[in-house]
Amino acid sequence: MTIILGIDPGLQHTGWGIILARSNQLSFIACGVINTDAKKSMAERLCQLNSGLKQVVGLHKPDEAAIEETFVNKNSATSLKLGQARGAILLSVSLEKIPVFEYSANLVKKSVVGTGHADKEQVAMMVKTLLPASNAMGADAADALATAICHAHQRTLNNLVKKVGT
Amino acid sequence: MTIILGIDPGLQHTGWGIILARSNQLSFIACGVINTDAKKSMAERLCQLNSGLKQVVGLHKPDEAAIEETFVNKNSATSLKLGQARGAILLSVSLEKIPVFEYSANLVKKSVVGTGHADKEQVAMMVKTLLPASNAMGADAADALATAICHAHQRTLNNLVKKVGT
Repeated sequence: MTIILGIDPGLQHTGWGIILARSNQLSFIACGVINTDAKKSMAERLCQLNSGLKQVVGLHKPDEAAIEETFVNKNSATSLKLGQARGAILLSVSLEKIPVFEYSANLVKKSVVGTGHADKEQVAMMVKTLLPASNAMGADAADALATAICHAHQRTLNNLVKKVGT
Repeated sequence: MTIILGIDPGLQHTGWGIILARSNQLSFIACGVINTDAKKSMAERLCQLNSGLKQVVGLHKPDEAAIEETFVNKNSATSLKLGQARGAILLSVSLEKIPVFEYSANLVKKSVVGTGHADKEQVAMMVKTLLPASNAMGADAADALATAICHAHQRTLNNLVKKVGT
């Protein structure tokens, strides 16, 4: 039984989702979004992300975390901003002693929808199908749950490979 | 009397410098570089930056910190990497309850050399002239000390403006 925290990182909105993986069964526990105040300084916004994540971790005590690899934006200034949010998030989760796994957006989509080129609506719809209890969530939380689902699948695969290997 | 921590952020090497600002006088206290292991995961490298900074802060107990604004690189993937280091650094310093001030590379150079278009060697030479005790340091530490000097000047200017205003 593993509690997985999925994260969709962003400076303005960071989606998070918690699922429980029990052998092949997945169930929804909680999800939400951490918002930061665009009027505050970068340092203050990163602290808002940190304190939001600490709250989620304190409440749900995840065993492992999964985060989507940030898409390399064409706009370098955007990448820099996103990078700062992502760095603060990776550090925040690591400081809580939770191992973090990184997955490409393509692999996340493939895990959930079956193809790496699905759009946001398809991902959200499949997340609702796979985790029926996760109703009425926004796109950021859906992406975070999709990342958690992807990690659950990868764990199962890795365990199978280990078993076959021995 | 204010102890200032200057930081030149980078994922591979983060330069740091500590100076003491006493009215108009600046003196060198310490400087160095925090290196991260390129073979480790991003999360582990951010933790290395965090623990390095915690050590510096614990030892020198700075009152304020100054960080150079990261140059927006043409290469978006580089910006993303640098951004992650910068986000982790900003968060690490903020979590130690130290106010962080951000300065553009141009302002840092102007403060130290007198022109915004100085090269690294000129900056390092002027840092050695302004802080004679800071001998034999690398470019990253010199840049960090330059950022600390820039902040010391800005503080003096802001205090003067406040005095004139009242």
